Amino acid sequence: MAKDDSKRIPRPIQYSDYLKLDELLSAQQLESKHYGPPAHDELLFIITHQAYELWFKQIVFELESVIDIFDNQTVEDLEMGQIIGWLSRITVIQRVLLQQIDVIETMTPLDFLDFRDLLVPASGFQSIQFKKIEIMMGIRRSMRTDADRDFFRSRLSERERISLDELEAKPNLLELTDAWLARMPFLKFGSYHFWDEYEGAVETMLESDQRIIESNPAISEENRVWQLAATEATRIRFESLLDEGKYEALRSAGEFRLSHQAFLAALFINLYRDEPMMYLPYRYLTLLLEIDQQFTNWRSRHALMVQRMLGRKIGTGGSSGADYLNQTTERNRVFLDLFALSTFLLPRSSLPELPSELKQALGFHFSKSAHTK
Amino acid sequence: MAKDDSKRIPRPIQYSDYLKLDELLSAQQLESKHYGPPAHDELLFIITHQAYELWFKQIVFELESVIDIFDNQTVEDLEMGQIIGWLSRITVIQRVLLQQIDVIETMTPLDFLDFRDLLVPASGFQSIQFKKIEIMMGIRRSMRTDADRDFFRSRLSERERISLDELEAKPNLLELTDAWLARMPFLKFGSYHFWDEYEGAVETMLESDQRIIESNPAISEENRVWQLAATEATRIRFESLLDEGKYEALRSAGEFRLSHQAFLAALFINLYRDEPMMYLPYRYLTLLLEIDQQFTNWRSRHALMVQRMLGRKIGTGGSSGADYLNQTTERNRVFLDLFALSTFLLPRSSLPELPSELKQALGFHFSKSAHTK
Amino acid sequence: MAKDDSKRIPRPIQYSDYLKLDELLSAQQLESKHYGPPAHDELLFIITHQAYELWFKQIVFELESVIDIFDNQTVEDLEMGQIIGWLSRITVIQRVLLQQIDVIETMTPLDFLDFRDLLVPASGFQSIQFKKIEIMMGIRRSMRTDADRDFFRSRLSERERISLDELEAKPNLLELTDAWLARMPFLKFGSYHFWDEYEGAVETMLESDQRIIESNPAISEENRVWQLAATEATRIRFESLLDEGKYEALRSAGEFRLSHQAFLAALFINLYRDEPMMYLPYRYLTLLLEIDQQFTNWRSRHALMVQRMLGRKIGTGGSSGADYLNQTTERNRVFLDLFALSTFLLPRSSLPELPSELKQALGFHFSKSAHTK
Amino acid sequence: MAKDDSKRIPRPIQYSDYLKLDELLSAQQLESKHYGPPAHDELLFIITHQAYELWFKQIVFELESVIDIFDNQTVEDLEMGQIIGWLSRITVIQRVLLQQIDVIETMTPLDFLDFRDLLVPASGFQSIQFKKIEIMMGIRRSMRTDADRDFFRSRLSERERISLDELEAKPNLLELTDAWLARMPFLKFGSYHFWDEYEGAVETMLESDQRIIESNPAISEENRVWQLAATEATRIRFESLLDEGKYEALRSAGEFRLSHQAFLAALFINLYRDEPMMYLPYRYLTLLLEIDQQFTNWRSRHALMVQRMLGRKIGTGGSSGADYLNQTTERNRVFLDLFALSTFLLPRSSLPELPSELKQALGFHFSKSAHTK
Repeated sequence: MAKDDSKRIPRPIQYSDYLKLDELLSAQQLESKHYGPPAHDELLFIITHQAYELWFKQIVFELESVIDIFDNQTVEDLEMGQIIGWLSRITVIQRVLLQQIDVIETMTPLDFLDFRDLLVPASGFQSIQFKKIEIMMGIRRSMRTDADRDFFRSRLSERERISLDELEAKPNLLELTDAWLARMPFLKFGSYHFWDEYEGAVETMLESDQRIIESNPAISEENRVWQLAATEATRIRFESLLDEGKYEALRSAGEFRLSHQAFLAALFINLYRDEPMMYLPYRYLTLLLEIDQQFTNWRSRHALMVQRMLGRKIGTGGSSGADYLNQTTERNRVFLDLFALSTFLLPRSSLPELPSELKQALGFHFSKSAHTK
Repeated sequence: MAKDDSKRIPRPIQYSDYLKLDELLSAQQLESKHYGPPAHDELLFIITHQAYELWFKQIVFELESVIDIFDNQTVEDLEMGQIIGWLSRITVIQRVLLQQIDVIETMTPLDFLDFRDLLVPASGFQSIQFKKIEIMMGIRRSMRTDADRDFFRSRLSERERISLDELEAKPNLLELTDAWLARMPFLKFGSYHFWDEYEGAVETMLESDQRIIESNPAISEENRVWQLAATEATRIRFESLLDEGKYEALRSAGEFRLSHQAFLAALFINLYRDEPMMYLPYRYLTLLLEIDQQFTNWRSRHALMVQRMLGRKIGTGGSSGADYLNQTTERNRVFLDLFALSTFLLPRSSLPELPSELKQALGFHFSKSAHTK
Repeated sequence: MAKDDSKRIPRPIQYSDYLKLDELLSAQQLESKHYGPPAHDELLFIITHQAYELWFKQIVFELESVIDIFDNQTVEDLEMGQIIGWLSRITVIQRVLLQQIDVIETMTPLDFLDFRDLLVPASGFQSIQFKKIEIMMGIRRSMRTDADRDFFRSRLSERERISLDELEAKPNLLELTDAWLARMPFLKFGSYHFWDEYEGAVETMLESDQRIIESNPAISEENRVWQLAATEATRIRFESLLDEGKYEALRSAGEFRLSHQAFLAALFINLYRDEPMMYLPYRYLTLLLEIDQQFTNWRSRHALMVQRMLGRKIGTGGSSGADYLNQTTERNRVFLDLFALSTFLLPRSSLPELPSELKQALGFHFSKSAHTK
Repeated sequence: MAKDDSKRIPRPIQYSDYLKLDELLSAQQLESKHYGPPAHDELLFIITHQAYELWFKQIVFELESVIDIFDNQTVEDLEMGQIIGWLSRITVIQRVLLQQIDVIETMTPLDFLDFRDLLVPASGFQSIQFKKIEIMMGIRRSMRTDADRDFFRSRLSERERISLDELEAKPNLLELTDAWLARMPFLKFGSYHFWDEYEGAVETMLESDQRIIESNPAISEENRVWQLAATEATRIRFESLLDEGKYEALRSAGEFRLSHQAFLAALFINLYRDEPMMYLPYRYLTLLLEIDQQFTNWRSRHALMVQRMLGRKIGTGGSSGADYLNQTTERNRVFLDLFALSTFLLPRSSLPELPSELKQALGFHFSKSAHTK
C-alpha cells in the first residue's frame, strides 16, 4: 500500500502534452484540398467520425475489462459492482453516439456531394472497432448478413482480419453471461424445487384465465374463441420453457440463444429481483438489454441518416447503404432472449413464495440484524 | 389596431385556475385500486400517456394551422415564416416524445404486470389524436397495414370514426405540399428550360464517370465491370426522373408519391437552396423530412419498448404488440420522396448556371442594392 | 395471495375513458379568446405548463413513497431497491423537464407578448406542487430568499398555505437521510475504530505531500510557498471533520447541514462503496445528489429562458423574473453536503484496510460461498 | 465548372488512413501507468477531453468561417444562409458537449482520485481552443475575471500567448454583428422616421396602462401604487433607449454592449421579424443568443460537475475549481443585449404599421407576383 515516496513525485504535466493535442488536432486532413478548394463540410465529416472512433475505443476498453473479470471465473460481488459501473457508462456514451447523428445531419446531401466521391472506396461501415464491439457483445460471423460477411472477406487488411479472427475465438459477453447464469445456485435448494412451484403457479393462472374468458358475459363470441386460442398458445409457450427438450429444439431453430439453464436463471432473477441479493444480477441483465437496445436505436437512426444523405444511391465503398444498415439493425441484436423474458413473468401476486431458508440466503445477513436491532 | 380600453382591462387570473389544475390533477384514476392495493407504477403509466396526449393535441393544432394556411391557396411568404416556426416546434416536441420513452422504461415488466391485465381491452395504439396526426401528415387508409385498418373498423366509437373519416376527406400535408410545389414558377423562365440544362449536366457527369472507370489503372477488372453496371443503373434512374411517362409508371408502382411536377420542383429547391429565395422553401421541405424521420424513430423505439415490456405476449387490447408496431414503423412514413431526392443531386461544380435574369428574380432586390451601395 | 376469481374479472376499459381524455383535452382554455382573436402560442404555453404539473405530480408521488418507507423506521434492504428505483425514475423525468424548456423556447418573446399581459397576476412561480417537491426534499422556509418567502405569505390561498405548512411539519428527505445515516452501524466494530485509522492515513498522506513539496526541485519557490499553505489549509479542513465540536461550529455557520455522525457515515459509504453491502447505500446517496443537481440545472435554464422572454421587465405576477430565479438556483440546493464529500476522500491506495471480520460482514455470505466452491 | 478529367480521378482511400486512426487511437497515454497499475478511469478522462478538443476545433472553424464572410464587408444574402447553417451547427454540437458531461460524471470522485494528483499542474481550464472560441465570440481580456486573466499571464507558452493576442486584435463576432446591424438601411426610409412612430406607440401604450391601473377596481391600493411605480420605471427605460446620450451613458456603465444604432436595428428586426426580408437576420440574432445561452448552460453544468468531483478542494492546476467556473458562467456571456431586447418589444397590436413602400421593399418581389397571379 505504501508506495515509496520517490515514486510519488509526479513530473509536472501540461494539458496539451497530456492530451497529445498536437497529434490530435493535426489529424484532420481534407481530401478535397487535393482536387480544388477545400469542401467546407469535410472537416465536420472527419471530426464526427474521429469522435465516434474515440468513443468506440472507450467502449471496447470497458467491454474488455468486463470480459476479463468474467474470464477469471470466480465472480466476486465486489467486481459485480465494477462491471455494472462500466456497462452503465457504456449506455451513457451511447447517448452521445446518438446525439452525434444530429451533428452529422447538419451537413446537407448537397454539401456532402462536394467531397463524397473523393472518399471511394472508404466507407463508414469499415470501422474495425465497431466490429470488435459487435464481436465482444456476441455477434458471430455466422449470424451476420451476407453483405456484412462479405466485408470481412474483402475489405480488411491481413492484420485486421487476423485481429478480428482472434477476437471471435475468445469468449464473448453472451457466452460468458450464459455460463455465469448457468452457474447460479438458486434453482434447487435442499428439497425445494423452484420450477415445480412455478409450473403449478402457471397452471393455476392459465386455468383461471380460461374460466374468466368462458364465463365473462362482456365478451363477444368471436372474441371468446380468439382469447381461448391465445390462452392455449400461451400454455404451449410455457411448456416449451419448462421442458428442456422442447426448449433446445426451439433454440436450434434460432428462437433462443441462451442455454436452458441460463435462460431459467435469468427468468428467476427477473422474478425475484426484489430480493437484495438479486439486485446486482438484475441490474447487470438490464444493462445488457439496454446496451443492445441502444445499439439497435443507433443503427436504425444511422440507416435513416444514410438514406437521407444518399437517397437510393450506393454509398462510398460501393455498399448498398441504407438497405445494408437496415438489415443489420435487426440482425445484429445480441440479447434478444432478455427481451423475451417478459413473456414468462408471473404477476407478483401469483409468484410462488420462496422458502424462508432460501429467502434468507438471498438477503444481506449483516444488514438484517444490524438495522432491526 | 386600437382596441378600446374597456376591453383591455384583463380580469385577474390565478395560476391554478388558468391551468385548470383541479381537473388536470384529479384525472389520474388507478384501475388497480378496484381490485386490491393500488399498483405503485400505474400512476406513471397514466401520467406518461396523458403527457403524450397533451403533446399530441399541440401537434394536431400546429398541423391544422399549417394546413389552414395552405388551404387559403395564395401562400404569401409572410406565412411561410410562420409555417416553418410551427413545424420546427413540432420537431422539438418530438424530442420530448422520445425522451418520455425513457421514462416509461423506468417501469419494469414485472411492475407492469401488477396492473396490465386490468386494462384489457384498452391499448396504447388507440390514440385517436395520433391517428389524426398520421392522417394530417398524409397517411391514407389504403396505405395502412391490415392490423391498422382493422383498428379503424373495430375499435372506434361511432363519433370517432366519423371524425377520422371527415379528416381523411380533407387535403393533407402531402397533397398540399404537392400542389404548392407543382405551382412553383421556377422551372421555365422565358426561353430558358432548366431541365434541358440539367439533363445535359447529368449526361456530361455520367460520361466522365464512365471514362474514369474505363481508364483508371487502380481498379481491378471485376470492380470495373461492377462500377460500369452501377453507372448504367444510375443513367436509367435519371431517365425515369426526366421522362414523365416513366416517372408516372414508377409512381403507380408505389416508388414515388409526389406528382412529377412537384418532385422536380422539390429537386430544384434542393439544388439551388443557396439562392436567397429558396431558403424558406428548402427549410420547409427539410422540416417535413425531419418530422417524418422523428416519428419513424419514435415508432421504432416504441416497438422495442413494447417488446421489452411484453416479450412475445399479445399486448393489452389483444393486438400483437411489438410486431404490429414494427410494421407501422416503415409503413407509416409519409415523405419518402424527400429522402429519395438525394439520388438526383448534382455536385455544385456540375450544376447548370442559372441565367442572371432568373438568378436575380430569386434574390432579394432590396438587400442587394441596399447593402452594396 | 390467491384472490378469488370473481374479483379478478376486470371490467372492460377503454383507452380514452381510462385516461380521462375528455377532461384532459378540454382543460386548455385560452384567455386571449376573451379579448380578441386567440393568440396562436397560448395553447403551447398552457400545454407546456400542464405537462410540467403532470410530471410534478409524479415526482411528488415518488418522493412521498420514499418518505413513507423511511418513516417506517426499519429500512429493510428489500425496500432500498425500491427507493432507488423510484429516485432513479425522478432523474429520468427531470430530463424531460429540461427538454420541455426547449419546447417553450420555440415561443418567441413577441409571440408571448400577444397574451402575456392577460395572465396577470398568474405566474409560473406559483406552482404549489413544485413548492411541495422542494419542501419534501428538505427546503425550509428559513432557507428561502425573501421573494420566495413573500410568495408563501401573499400568493397562496388559505387551503394551499395550510397544506404547505403541514408538509413542512413532516420529516423531509434531508432529515430522514440524516437519521438513516446516523443509525449506520459500520463506524465502530468490536475494538476497531475506523476514524482513528482514517486520521492516521490522512496524517501520513499530508506529511508525504509536504515532504514532496519541500524537496521537489521542479517547483519554483513562490509556488512552493503557495502549495505548503494549501496543504496546511487541507490539514485544518480534515481536523474540523474529525473533531465533532469544530464540525458543529461550522454546521451552525451553515457550512454543513448533515449531523456529524451522518456526514461521517456518508463519507464511509463513499470510501468503501466497492464493498457489496455499500452498493445500495452508495447508489442512494448518488441519486440524491443527482436529483439536486438536475433541479439546479433546471432552475438555471429556467432563469435564462425567462430572461430571454422578458428581458429586464417584471414577470407575470409582478415578480422580478430572471433575478428571482437566479437567486433560487443556488439557494434552493439541498444536498450540498454530498457535493462536499469529495473534499475528504482518500485515494484507494491510502485507504485503511478494513479488518477482515468487518469486511466479511459487509459482503454477501451466500454468494461468496456459492460462487467459489 | 468543367475541371479536366485527369484531376477528377480520385486516388483510392481507406477509412483508417483517411481518419488517421493510427495516430488518433494511439494518442491516449495514461500517466498512471508510470506510477503503478494503470487507473481504469484515466482512459475515459483522456478520451472525453480529446472529444471536447475535437469539437472545439470544429466550432473554431465554423466561427472563423462566419467571421471571414463578415470581414468581406458586403454581406450578400446568399452567404447569410451559409452563416446561419454554420451557427446552427454549432448549437447542435453544443448539445453533444452538454451530453459529454454526463459521460464524465460516470467517473466517481474516488475513481478520479486514483490518478488526479498525477496531472498537476495540468487543468481542464487550460484549453486554448476554448479561449479562442470565447475571444472570437467577443470576450476581451478586460471583461474577464482576475483568475481568468491570470491564466493568460502565467499559464500560456510564448507561442500560445502570441496566438491569442493576435486573435484578440482581430474583429470578433460581437463587433462584426454591431457593424452589420448599424449598417442596416431600414431605419429611415424617405420621409418616414420609424423611431418617431415607435415612440408614439410606446407613449400610447404606457398611458393606457396607467389609465387601467388607476381605474381598475380589482386592484388593491398598495398594489396600485406599486404598479404605477413600475409603469414609471418602464417609461424611463424606454427614454434611455430612444435618447442616444442616455443610452451611451448606460453603455459606458456596462449595461449595454452594442452601439445605439446597432441595438435599435436589432430591436427593429425583432419587431418586424414576420416580414420576409427580416427572416434571415432574425434567425441570425436568435442563433447568437442560443449559442451564448448554451455555453452558459455548459459552464454552469461544468461548475457543478467539478464541485461534485473535487468538493471544496483546489483543482488540478492549483485553480480554485468550482468557484472559478461559477464566476465565468455569468461573466463570460457575450450577447446579453439580445436577452435584453425583450424589454422593448411592443405587442403586435401596438406596433406601428410600416408604410407600404417600405413593407414592399422588405418582401420578395418575385414570389409576391409569382404566387398571386
